[in-house]
Amino acid sequence: MDGKIKTGVIGAGRIGRLHAENIVNNIREAEIKAIADINTENVKDWANELGINNVYDDYRRIIADPEIEAVLICSSTDTHAQIIIEAANAGKHIFCEKPIDFSIDRIYEALDAVDKNGVKLQIGFNRRFDHNFKKVRDLVKEGEIGTPHIIRITSRDPEPPPIEYVKRSGGIFLDMTIHDFDMARYLSGSDVVEVYTNAAVLVDPAIGEAGDADTAVISLKFANGAIGVIDNSRKAAYGYDQRVEVFGSEGCVTVSNDTPTSAVLSTQSGVISDKPKYFFLERYQDSFVTEMRAFFDSIINDSEPPVNGVDGLKPILIALAAKESYETGRPVKVEEA
Amino acid sequence: MDGKIKTGVIGAGRIGRLHAENIVNNIREAEIKAIADINTENVKDWANELGINNVYDDYRRIIADPEIEAVLICSSTDTHAQIIIEAANAGKHIFCEKPIDFSIDRIYEALDAVDKNGVKLQIGFNRRFDHNFKKVRDLVKEGEIGTPHIIRITSRDPEPPPIEYVKRSGGIFLDMTIHDFDMARYLSGSDVVEVYTNAAVLVDPAIGEAGDADTAVISLKFANGAIGVIDNSRKAAYGYDQRVEVFGSEGCVTVSNDTPTSAVLSTQSGVISDKPKYFFLERYQDSFVTEMRAFFDSIINDSEPPVNGVDGLKPILIALAAKESYETGRPVKVEEA
Amino acid sequence: MDGKIKTGVIGAGRIGRLHAENIVNNIREAEIKAIADINTENVKDWANELGINNVYDDYRRIIADPEIEAVLICSSTDTHAQIIIEAANAGKHIFCEKPIDFSIDRIYEALDAVDKNGVKLQIGFNRRFDHNFKKVRDLVKEGEIGTPHIIRITSRDPEPPPIEYVKRSGGIFLDMTIHDFDMARYLSGSDVVEVYTNAAVLVDPAIGEAGDADTAVISLKFANGAIGVIDNSRKAAYGYDQRVEVFGSEGCVTVSNDTPTSAVLSTQSGVISDKPKYFFLERYQDSFVTEMRAFFDSIINDSEPPVNGVDGLKPILIALAAKESYETGRPVKVEEA
Amino acid sequence: MDGKIKTGVIGAGRIGRLHAENIVNNIREAEIKAIADINTENVKDWANELGINNVYDDYRRIIADPEIEAVLICSSTDTHAQIIIEAANAGKHIFCEKPIDFSIDRIYEALDAVDKNGVKLQIGFNRRFDHNFKKVRDLVKEGEIGTPHIIRITSRDPEPPPIEYVKRSGGIFLDMTIHDFDMARYLSGSDVVEVYTNAAVLVDPAIGEAGDADTAVISLKFANGAIGVIDNSRKAAYGYDQRVEVFGSEGCVTVSNDTPTSAVLSTQSGVISDKPKYFFLERYQDSFVTEMRAFFDSIINDSEPPVNGVDGLKPILIALAAKESYETGRPVKVEEA
Repeated sequence: MDGKIKTGVIGAGRIGRLHAENIVNNIREAEIKAIADINTENVKDWANELGINNVYDDYRRIIADPEIEAVLICSSTDTHAQIIIEAANAGKHIFCEKPIDFSIDRIYEALDAVDKNGVKLQIGFNRRFDHNFKKVRDLVKEGEIGTPHIIRITSRDPEPPPIEYVKRSGGIFLDMTIHDFDMARYLSGSDVVEVYTNAAVLVDPAIGEAGDADTAVISLKFANGAIGVIDNSRKAAYGYDQRVEVFGSEGCVTVSNDTPTSAVLSTQSGVISDKPKYFFLERYQDSFVTEMRAFFDSIINDSEPPVNGVDGLKPILIALAAKESYETGRPVKVEEA
Repeated sequence: MDGKIKTGVIGAGRIGRLHAENIVNNIREAEIKAIADINTENVKDWANELGINNVYDDYRRIIADPEIEAVLICSSTDTHAQIIIEAANAGKHIFCEKPIDFSIDRIYEALDAVDKNGVKLQIGFNRRFDHNFKKVRDLVKEGEIGTPHIIRITSRDPEPPPIEYVKRSGGIFLDMTIHDFDMARYLSGSDVVEVYTNAAVLVDPAIGEAGDADTAVISLKFANGAIGVIDNSRKAAYGYDQRVEVFGSEGCVTVSNDTPTSAVLSTQSGVISDKPKYFFLERYQDSFVTEMRAFFDSIINDSEPPVNGVDGLKPILIALAAKESYETGRPVKVEEA
Repeated sequence: MDGKIKTGVIGAGRIGRLHAENIVNNIREAEIKAIADINTENVKDWANELGINNVYDDYRRIIADPEIEAVLICSSTDTHAQIIIEAANAGKHIFCEKPIDFSIDRIYEALDAVDKNGVKLQIGFNRRFDHNFKKVRDLVKEGEIGTPHIIRITSRDPEPPPIEYVKRSGGIFLDMTIHDFDMARYLSGSDVVEVYTNAAVLVDPAIGEAGDADTAVISLKFANGAIGVIDNSRKAAYGYDQRVEVFGSEGCVTVSNDTPTSAVLSTQSGVISDKPKYFFLERYQDSFVTEMRAFFDSIINDSEPPVNGVDGLKPILIALAAKESYETGRPVKVEEA
Repeated sequence: MDGKIKTGVIGAGRIGRLHAENIVNNIREAEIKAIADINTENVKDWANELGINNVYDDYRRIIADPEIEAVLICSSTDTHAQIIIEAANAGKHIFCEKPIDFSIDRIYEALDAVDKNGVKLQIGFNRRFDHNFKKVRDLVKEGEIGTPHIIRITSRDPEPPPIEYVKRSGGIFLDMTIHDFDMARYLSGSDVVEVYTNAAVLVDPAIGEAGDADTAVISLKFANGAIGVIDNSRKAAYGYDQRVEVFGSEGCVTVSNDTPTSAVLSTQSGVISDKPKYFFLERYQDSFVTEMRAFFDSIINDSEPPVNGVDGLKPILIALAAKESYETGRPVKVEEA
């Protein structure tokens, strides 16, 4: 097993476990040496089953282990920046789940530590690794649609999160649309410079009472002159709706939803096909493997990770601008945020 | 032939001829008694071929003919209001091409004349009669998608009109988006109360020099709380792109473009299907027949025409608000217009 | 109106009326001078409405009218050959509904009369003029799929005809599959040389009692070496199913069913789209106009009609071979028929 | 690791390695204790990488190991029956790649040994575990299409195998169509009782010189009265074409090809979407995992494997009948084979 990149996973919730399993099953170049979680009892059996023997309640044991070259930060958002700083100072390469933090200052501190120590940092915007969206980006980059004019992103959840989660989430723009802001930058190859938010509470009044919106159309201006629009809903009755379109001077590329099967049933009642894959874990299953592979490749090849610290920062700035636009009812420049 | 509604057509350009031919070939309940056009020489052969013997250079001969019950106003926009007023005062039912006028005051004068004389007035928003869009409206009305939350309209022309036309057109919002504003009202079953325009000159700098935009994303707020977005381009390389989507509490309905055939060719180079029907005359061919039928039905049944004077006025108000939003960079309430 | 081809319509049932209306509304180069039907009472009002003043009970008055250049034979099948012979001898161009006759000898007599008199004869295989199938043929002819290897035709009716009709129909192969045999020749550009029929009574036992089958898979060998298969059913619960596919050395072209609209409704219950157009009159509406235009064009340009007498004969030979194969359980060469 | 089913893999070619990797990465209930291959040198590094330490050149060491409960037979076809017999006699559960053997007598010997020893035997017809085909089967079984009338299977390879392989393959019916014969039984829930083969050499004359065909349409009769058709080609220019359709009294279910992405590119040249997944390893990737899981589930739950010995035998009988039909030019009953 020598030669494998020894890796520590910090936080063994849903997403931490997913990454760990993907590494064990799919990434031959890495091995997980240790897992840290504040609640080791819940984690041990699962870790054992995966063949991971070191389970700590203190992530600092991972940071302190000189054999560990890479860490995955999958703990709660409020701990991300602190762990990035500590891991960077310990010379470890870092994969961190999004968002880095809700505080811009804190993000800059974390990015500074990464820069100073010359370690890799990749942020968990997994949708960039989705087969469909990557194909769109590739076609755009290859010039197949000419110069991008209009970027359109539809992103609708199958159901709203629990209201307690909504209250702590930072709001729809920082919690949900943040993925779409990243996608907007990725697909257009340009930065978002101004946003105008048209949002409402149409799904659940409790979300409004928590000070948040659940339905939104967000208009975007890009640095390269293109314009864009994201539409979001917290509840699509038919499942997880994830589509994008880039329209340009020479054409248009569109992706539709993935479905469990291609079966089409025609009866007297109509012609019925599959609903979209229902949940992000199914829909983006492969993208999580691909992003892990990209992270370890950037370590092995000593190359820039495909989603770096700035890519982690920018969507948060856009989200803050979108939030301000929602609150003030006027378009907001991202640099104001 | 008795019992047929004797009809006069005013203006025998492209759209006037289209309506005339549709009436002759498809509307058994009507007959065209006379055509008026300022240039009778160009019109006579075509009219003869159709079996229309009376070709006048002065539309007032149609207005003055007591046998004529209905007129189609297909002349240039600046003449619409005046002819509506004269026709209404002569007791004739009126089908008028969109827009009624660019002046709101002038529109009110025309609508007043219609009201005072108790005649029918139908405005030529033909897309309401398109098979696809009508099906969307029907599904929405029947509650199949629950309460509408997000209305999305894509409307892109295959190529920009000549620059001379652009200069006289009143701008993209009054010339092109006006159909989409009507569609927004039609599909949502609600009025647009506020718009925010994000527009740019990306297709042809000459359009910008003429003071107009050629690419736009327009964000909408509806009276019923729904939100919407229209995206426009003056040039889609692949042809005429006309799609809509209504998303609601219980589901979503989407229509895609019509194509000449359903043929799909699979070769080593890829899987290739037809481009959308290229031009509005092909795409909306049937809708023009259906709107004519609806007009004559409203006369025969003495019922309200399906696109009345207020339906003609409202999209102009929205377009003026969209234009102001483009010029000021802020959201604009439609009632401000 | 001079210069128009004066035309007589013989038989004013469903298909005769359809052709007559299509000519009146769409074919400027022709006019209908007279209609003959054994039951003039049912026909007069309809003919009047269309502006056709001469309604005869004896088709010979049409044959005898020297002004009439072209006749449409839309009467019952058993009269086709006789009327072709009389019309040809009277020097009239002939459009005849399929099939020419069930007797091969009788067909040869009719074709001989056509040849001898040098008149045009077009047979009513309207599907060749369908937008979808014509596109497939064009792509095949242009070599887009290379050399044809496999021709696949699916043709299923929405419901079986009345059992009385079934008894007189000549059986499914002569009544229904005959269109598909024509399509097989048209799409492949080659003749069918051998058939093997695998058929059953699965829809309605009464059809079996009448000596007929209602479900069939018919395997074809073509003169050019290609192979093919037709599948038929008298009852598709979801409507009229009309698809073809041609697979060749360089690729494959497929057409799917036409639908009333492109609307797709996504709800918790599934993703639902339109059923195929239900009936042949809707599905093939435009093809009937196009075939009429082709007939009159062949007269005007003095060119071979696109579906000539031999094209009318061949599908009958194939149908007879298919029937024999069904009865004997072995493959049958078409030349045996 | 106790409690895991200790498994031996016999034959470490492409398919043996695929199964081994799938077990290691996805089947927690099994572990691979040993691999046997006649050429251990090629296998060792790969096995080591997977964490498999025992690599034998003689499969009998696996048969002799009392700890090993299950074996996967992935060696060449001519060894299958012999190894089945030895493994069954040693009391091991068996997963065997298709076909069991080309000799019916030899298959019966193998199945007898399985029966006598009461071990499980699953045959590697992986397509039954494909998400699309399984959905079709489920819908048929649930009665969604009523009684099956017509079963249609399209199965075309992206390119022919090397001519040396063709010569040893047993011919297209035993090598390629055998999967489709299994699919026919699976989808219809009935047995094939008679076949008629219409085949030709259209792809490569060398295949004909080897006594084989490369293009085929095979007509099927089922015990339950349904009829069916399979079409095969050794070379589809656009990739691996795998579609099925079941049509019945109440409707029809169809599946289309899986594609790498859902991207649709619209430009002036046309509307282009992805070709099918090119090769069976990509197309059926998930099905191989699912079939392994089903095999181990049948051991754990002591239930009948979903593709048993009879399911392995029947497609061979059908293939032999299809071959005889091709050679004699007449329909052949399967019981004759």
